[in-house]
Amino acid sequence: MRAEIIGVGTELLLGEVVNTNAAFIARELAALGIACHNMQVVGDNPARLRAALDIALSRSDLVITTGGLGPTKDDLTKETIADALGVPLEFHQPSWDHVLNRLAARGRTPEPSHRREAMMPIGARVFPNPQGTANALAITTAKTVPQKEAASSQTVIMLPGPPREMAAVFQDEIAPCLSAQSEGTIVSHNLHFLGIGESQLEAQLPPGLLEASNPTTALYAGTGEVRIRLSARAATEQEAEDLIAPIANQLKDQFQDYLYSTDLDLQTALVQTLKEKQLTIATAESCTGGRIAAKITAVAGSSDVFGYGVVSYANSAKMEVLGVRPETLAQFGAVSEETAIEMAEGVKNLSGADIGIGVTGIAGPDGGSVTKPIGLVWVGIAGANGVAAKQLNLGRGLAEQRELIQELATTHALNLALRAARDL
Amino acid sequence: MRAEIIGVGTELLLGEVVNTNAAFIARELAALGIACHNMQVVGDNPARLRAALDIALSRSDLVITTGGLGPTKDDLTKETIADALGVPLEFHQPSWDHVLNRLAARGRTPEPSHRREAMMPIGARVFPNPQGTANALAITTAKTVPQKEAASSQTVIMLPGPPREMAAVFQDEIAPCLSAQSEGTIVSHNLHFLGIGESQLEAQLPPGLLEASNPTTALYAGTGEVRIRLSARAATEQEAEDLIAPIANQLKDQFQDYLYSTDLDLQTALVQTLKEKQLTIATAESCTGGRIAAKITAVAGSSDVFGYGVVSYANSAKMEVLGVRPETLAQFGAVSEETAIEMAEGVKNLSGADIGIGVTGIAGPDGGSVTKPIGLVWVGIAGANGVAAKQLNLGRGLAEQRELIQELATTHALNLALRAARDL
Repeated sequence: MRAEIIGVGTELLLGEVVNTNAAFIARELAALGIACHNMQVVGDNPARLRAALDIALSRSDLVITTGGLGPTKDDLTKETIADALGVPLEFHQPSWDHVLNRLAARGRTPEPSHRREAMMPIGARVFPNPQGTANALAITTAKTVPQKEAASSQTVIMLPGPPREMAAVFQDEIAPCLSAQSEGTIVSHNLHFLGIGESQLEAQLPPGLLEASNPTTALYAGTGEVRIRLSARAATEQEAEDLIAPIANQLKDQFQDYLYSTDLDLQTALVQTLKEKQLTIATAESCTGGRIAAKITAVAGSSDVFGYGVVSYANSAKMEVLGVRPETLAQFGAVSEETAIEMAEGVKNLSGADIGIGVTGIAGPDGGSVTKPIGLVWVGIAGANGVAAKQLNLGRGLAEQRELIQELATTHALNLALRAARDL
Repeated sequence: MRAEIIGVGTELLLGEVVNTNAAFIARELAALGIACHNMQVVGDNPARLRAALDIALSRSDLVITTGGLGPTKDDLTKETIADALGVPLEFHQPSWDHVLNRLAARGRTPEPSHRREAMMPIGARVFPNPQGTANALAITTAKTVPQKEAASSQTVIMLPGPPREMAAVFQDEIAPCLSAQSEGTIVSHNLHFLGIGESQLEAQLPPGLLEASNPTTALYAGTGEVRIRLSARAATEQEAEDLIAPIANQLKDQFQDYLYSTDLDLQTALVQTLKEKQLTIATAESCTGGRIAAKITAVAGSSDVFGYGVVSYANSAKMEVLGVRPETLAQFGAVSEETAIEMAEGVKNLSGADIGIGVTGIAGPDGGSVTKPIGLVWVGIAGANGVAAKQLNLGRGLAEQRELIQELATTHALNLALRAARDL
């Protein structure tokens, strides 16, 4: 089965709303083992929606639309698609009851326009919307254009546009219905790497891996990191896992120096590792300005492993709160190996945590010099096994690189903390 | 001119990445006065990209693609589109120099695959990518299909996929180029509001404002904030400013209780105000976990106004570092008006700053109770005029709302700090 998603709404074409619905549905389809090859977006315009539908029906077995089912004048999806498929609308009592019940629950009475939400194409399958007045619906029709695929019919599913309503009706009603129809399942795993470039990683991949069709292998570059996604399709989840495992193990082995986790982002991997080892961490941040603490505390349950963070932007904060020695600052400067280590030790002592991390650097745009250029960052780690520091050179010579340097420094610091936690 | 956006990338079709690029470009096109009627997404598949391009060229004058320009085998956009338009590729020395310079700045050497980033269609216009190795490009070609529109040529612009790179090259290179092609100039100003909902604001707008065509008025809802963008097109910049001014002034007047800035984000408005008044600020954060400090320090030059931040996630940190009294914690709890105020006073005293801000709350998913539900946040402010606190109820009853609560609390705290700074 080949699926296609059409987002309907002028707000999408103006960029006022990001099309998160398409990503949600695509993830759900992938989990169901249904291939999605195309997405489209059109405005609240019947002619262009009709044209998009014609294109979709010429190549896809399943078309899912979002938006345009509401009561206002702009909402034309149902009327346009029913007309295109030659199906007249009729009054649908259960949908009208649904509208009345939903409105009554909020102490409201229907406007005349709400009646449109109860007009349904004859023979359509109607799916109650658990979060809104506009029900979802599906029309199944004989194939209008001959295609290679075996299916002899096509289905158009129309979902409401508000993401919460769309997600609720999809999960409650559409997913079970599609699951019953689809063959097999898709399983994906993501290997996360730091310290190696996308092209460097690709050049070392086993020959033919990127061209293989099951599992498929894809490379993604993020800020400072690279991810390999392995996806397998099989009759059962276990069979799909078995297809992925040998390749995943081979890649983990080959790139173990760069791998930081499977399926977990960096901060979650760090918090999990600390929890498993019953360790705690504390942060002392200068150039990252609180980003490391913010990443750690974004993880639910991080309070078990993190209690203290200091943003010591000023030298006085480094000395007074963290106990960095004035002589260290005078002799080596605020951005130095020595200061990073004393910051890490200082916050470790202040907090009683098992691991202290100290980050100091020059994010720019001012403050750079020949010996200490913008992008120079020192990360200090203090743990039970002593102290260590790493120098990073994150400057890219860009006009606006302050946030990039701060972000990269945060990523590197979290990675060093993760390695320190694993080694403890 | 009629534009269309094609997102290229299997990760989009799998829903692993949300297509924020399309929304970004759509907003930029709208600001330039260019109509966008269609969006498409296809995977890293030459045949389907070719089909999508054919559809786009049959109806649009300007086609903008994102993704598929990198060095890996998956990256096929340039090759596929050049081939479709019948333009061979040739080695482009400036692009190769760009690759080498970007890599050298990071201490790296090119892989053989990087050479692909320097192959450009003959006659293509190349736009340097300020954030990555893969340059953007544009091919202009005679119209392949007769259309109603007057233009006799069509242009395909290819942009890199990583949002940061795409946005940088669009703003630095593509927008000025498109702007020069459209008549006159466009000036936009953004009014930023907090504390009022989008629909509440919309309902109170002067009648007809949203329908007017010059200037255009658009409403955008962000996380906890609403923005009104006013865009005017005129022969000169001054004429455009003159068209915007009366409406901007009327709106500023009408919604002055909610307006926090014109054209500046919250943290930049805060840092600017503090600088102008020669004031300093310090932060004590519990549930926001360092986000407030991170926002402030994202602003270049923030070290003039910010020197100390404390992330007091643990109660011991609140007491030992900030001097919150044990009795306060015992009697009122960590999430209370009293604790928020003592945190604010504590960090003010610790740092010697003019303004101290203390934030404590329950971000969830655990820790909520009937009297103190998830989403309850107290913000305390300590300044020269004494102390104040504000209660926020940020829970939305969602399954995954931790980061949303942290973000909303950060926004509110920055706004309260801005108001405190303006009042000092």
